[in-house]
Amino acid sequence: MCRWLAYSGEALQPSSLILDTKHSVVAMSLNSPLGAETVNGDGFGLGWYSTDAAAADGPAVYRSTEPAWNDQNLREISRAVRTPLFFTHVRAAAAPPIQQTNCHPFRHENWLFMHNGAIHGFESFKRELVLDVDPSLYPSIQGTTDTEVLFHLALTYGLMDDPVAAVGAAIRRVEKAGQAAGEQFPMQGTLAVTDGVTVWAFRYSTQGRSRSLFHSADIPTLREMYPDVARLNDFGDHARVVVSEPLNDLPGVFLEVPESTVAVVEPDGYRHAEFLPA
Amino acid sequence: MCRWLAYSGEALQPSSLILDTKHSVVAMSLNSPLGAETVNGDGFGLGWYSTDAAAADGPAVYRSTEPAWNDQNLREISRAVRTPLFFTHVRAAAAPPIQQTNCHPFRHENWLFMHNGAIHGFESFKRELVLDVDPSLYPSIQGTTDTEVLFHLALTYGLMDDPVAAVGAAIRRVEKAGQAAGEQFPMQGTLAVTDGVTVWAFRYSTQGRSRSLFHSADIPTLREMYPDVARLNDFGDHARVVVSEPLNDLPGVFLEVPESTVAVVEPDGYRHAEFLPA
Amino acid sequence: MCRWLAYSGEALQPSSLILDTKHSVVAMSLNSPLGAETVNGDGFGLGWYSTDAAAADGPAVYRSTEPAWNDQNLREISRAVRTPLFFTHVRAAAAPPIQQTNCHPFRHENWLFMHNGAIHGFESFKRELVLDVDPSLYPSIQGTTDTEVLFHLALTYGLMDDPVAAVGAAIRRVEKAGQAAGEQFPMQGTLAVTDGVTVWAFRYSTQGRSRSLFHSADIPTLREMYPDVARLNDFGDHARVVVSEPLNDLPGVFLEVPESTVAVVEPDGYRHAEFLPA
Amino acid sequence: MCRWLAYSGEALQPSSLILDTKHSVVAMSLNSPLGAETVNGDGFGLGWYSTDAAAADGPAVYRSTEPAWNDQNLREISRAVRTPLFFTHVRAAAAPPIQQTNCHPFRHENWLFMHNGAIHGFESFKRELVLDVDPSLYPSIQGTTDTEVLFHLALTYGLMDDPVAAVGAAIRRVEKAGQAAGEQFPMQGTLAVTDGVTVWAFRYSTQGRSRSLFHSADIPTLREMYPDVARLNDFGDHARVVVSEPLNDLPGVFLEVPESTVAVVEPDGYRHAEFLPA
Repeated sequence: MCRWLAYSGEALQPSSLILDTKHSVVAMSLNSPLGAETVNGDGFGLGWYSTDAAAADGPAVYRSTEPAWNDQNLREISRAVRTPLFFTHVRAAAAPPIQQTNCHPFRHENWLFMHNGAIHGFESFKRELVLDVDPSLYPSIQGTTDTEVLFHLALTYGLMDDPVAAVGAAIRRVEKAGQAAGEQFPMQGTLAVTDGVTVWAFRYSTQGRSRSLFHSADIPTLREMYPDVARLNDFGDHARVVVSEPLNDLPGVFLEVPESTVAVVEPDGYRHAEFLPA
Repeated sequence: MCRWLAYSGEALQPSSLILDTKHSVVAMSLNSPLGAETVNGDGFGLGWYSTDAAAADGPAVYRSTEPAWNDQNLREISRAVRTPLFFTHVRAAAAPPIQQTNCHPFRHENWLFMHNGAIHGFESFKRELVLDVDPSLYPSIQGTTDTEVLFHLALTYGLMDDPVAAVGAAIRRVEKAGQAAGEQFPMQGTLAVTDGVTVWAFRYSTQGRSRSLFHSADIPTLREMYPDVARLNDFGDHARVVVSEPLNDLPGVFLEVPESTVAVVEPDGYRHAEFLPA
Repeated sequence: MCRWLAYSGEALQPSSLILDTKHSVVAMSLNSPLGAETVNGDGFGLGWYSTDAAAADGPAVYRSTEPAWNDQNLREISRAVRTPLFFTHVRAAAAPPIQQTNCHPFRHENWLFMHNGAIHGFESFKRELVLDVDPSLYPSIQGTTDTEVLFHLALTYGLMDDPVAAVGAAIRRVEKAGQAAGEQFPMQGTLAVTDGVTVWAFRYSTQGRSRSLFHSADIPTLREMYPDVARLNDFGDHARVVVSEPLNDLPGVFLEVPESTVAVVEPDGYRHAEFLPA
Repeated sequence: MCRWLAYSGEALQPSSLILDTKHSVVAMSLNSPLGAETVNGDGFGLGWYSTDAAAADGPAVYRSTEPAWNDQNLREISRAVRTPLFFTHVRAAAAPPIQQTNCHPFRHENWLFMHNGAIHGFESFKRELVLDVDPSLYPSIQGTTDTEVLFHLALTYGLMDDPVAAVGAAIRRVEKAGQAAGEQFPMQGTLAVTDGVTVWAFRYSTQGRSRSLFHSADIPTLREMYPDVARLNDFGDHARVVVSEPLNDLPGVFLEVPESTVAVVEPDGYRHAEFLPA
């Protein structure tokens, strides 16, 4: 119930994608053409890895409950840092509470996780899912969202060893609990996970009608297609974006990720594979 | 650049108009069909007079920079108090800063003031207007909005003695400063002012194309028109609402206030008069 | 790790105790002479019952993560309402997150609950305690505090039928879990519970060295003792306060609640009884 | 009415001085041994220059109205960036409003400015001072503090050309206005100004009894004095700190800046000069 963007490639200021594009994530927070909700004003987050090894061991996360569109600190921070890999997310909450601990991306050690969608009927089987979380991970659940529980299930099932298998197992666990509670289509959404090097982006819903997901085309190819679009020169050859909806209206720049697919973005390429096919 | 509602009549919980109607002010904060801006998520305010003489001398004001739609405190407060006269406002800011001191309604002693619209080009002649504010009132300007300056100009020109004349003089002052600065149509908007007994609601713009403004029809008449609408029984015979746009879709319930008009709501009736005609 | 105050008696504005006394709760938030922590700046809450039956079914709660001492909305609200029974609390958090869902008082239906103290070692046995909460109550846990879990345990054990027994059972459950986890003295603190009519205030710690707790003396008696203290005339004959530390320095006005004691404040009187004696 | 710290030297994470020292600025926010106020919980700010020329033209500023001691975002940001020059400030407000636009440091183009102290009687002559601000700078005053007006006066009087003369002229202007309004000792405090290369730190009060100010001793000398203090190896040879009070208790590490003095910290050295002597 949100919008998100993941970037990987040459280091840049997050502002160039968060603030400075036609349908930037901040613009989407106010008006999201393809979103299930038009307004995503219930907080946001920015998680980024530093180019400067001395600066931080893991990713930093800035989260706020203010709408992204007028958050002065987001403007400052997203211009002041440079990063080769970042996640950003704007939130439309189903209900209160609106609090930083409910803002994506969520973090565990070197990993980040974010979600656009919902676990339908979550309140009625939340307790069952939480009981499945590894007791050593349990105390780090700090908010009230379905996504944070899903992340902790995936960590329990081995996210840090095999992210595709672990996210698949977590979703299957959610579907089992949800369907036992009478929910026909428990899982909905797109998910992004990273260890700071690779980004895994999942598009999946129990019903097979998932929220939208796109990835950017190859930058050198785009430069040939659009020699007059100066903005393409702002990006390096390895710049890749995965995003809830296209950041601009140029045909061919953003390609849809198919249903039941995991898109894998690595420093030197992009590939996708089937994920939990029907 | 906002939405507002003023209520006068039998004491009720503000929630009945803020939360519980189809196009309530909180609903308008997320999706405003007639608004110049669709989303009004940059803070809100509720100013109310108590039924309990012992509770307070003047009106209380609750303001927050969070979007109204998920503000838990607004839900609590608007259900916990009862009041015969209140103002409420949701804000769409042109720019930062988003801060409580920029949230309407503004208060001076027993008076409240709020605005939907803008003073175009304000930054370029703000200093000139502020210099016109009575020096004794100057320190009470705490925010950065055009509306707060307009309020202080009206106070300077005698708002507490003759509100219609003082608001007229303040608008003429704004138009003079704006046009000297090259702004063709400086003033835009609808304004509401009250002393706790009478509500004055102004619809005016230099260009003669003002933001929308409506007032509710007479409740006893509406009950005759709609004998099956149970909700009308929730309101007293003297309940009157002035609002940026209709709270529901029933024909005849909300009547448009004409251009260049001041609508005056008093405990025993409603009237309107020309205001700054062309 | 906080300060709290509970009032019962003739209806008054909470501001008279929250803002207007020498050692008011807001003053204590900045400088708490008897507190385990000097500063209680990590949020606060005000829960109150209305005098106006039409206004609300249960208590209203206003919570904020801003320090109480400069919160403008607290000043407004605590002056604008009148109430015969309210709870207020200022918080010193052991650690983030600072969020409204961690602010006291907590509410369930018509009941309020607040705490000054801590469950020592809570993180290591939180999961065990949460599993003991009635599954139907589980989804209403929204924050991360020990107090909210303690409240839900007490609800599970029958708080709404027999509050003294249920709070006792919840504390014994905490002590059992804590001691199994190697914590010698798991429970520390003072607790207040109310159903809107009666206030139960508990002073208890496993170690027998509890945070301070006081109740006010009988107002008619105080008026005889201090005929020159005009402020005593601001309170009705049935005004009673239970509070973490005295609100003023007059001898005899505040009396200490003994260790291992529950103080019961009812509309027509005050009594106390042993609670979980060693 | 605050505490501040300015760092210049080899690039480091601000957290090493903001969070990780015994009397760090965050620790001072809760308990400030030498401060005029013990608690500085009314917001804070961090302004920093990037090591990465591509990241930003001028300094970035992160400001928040939450107390610094539990602000999770401050922990994240101050660990995630590295900077050769930063200002940080924790605030104790005399009165509301508490808002980001009142948090120091203030910024104009490449310059930062912060203050510990007050202009006594400011409200009564604020308007006179604001009228002296260059009209082109007037619209950038966004908050309500004395410090922001002082900064804009200094900008008006040539801060960017000759900071010592301009700050002197601004203070003399304040003293003139204040004394005309009957204030015997209008100016109090310590000020820090930087253009990103040099830091000017002023200690001055009309009465000659200024808030405390210290600068760190030469790091290579300190390493000789304290060969066993491993922490000194975390700092480069050119690391210099100017701060409201010492960050640790080691004798000789922090030296007091005298009354009526400007301390100038440049990349290759430290000097001080008389400033507005009596």
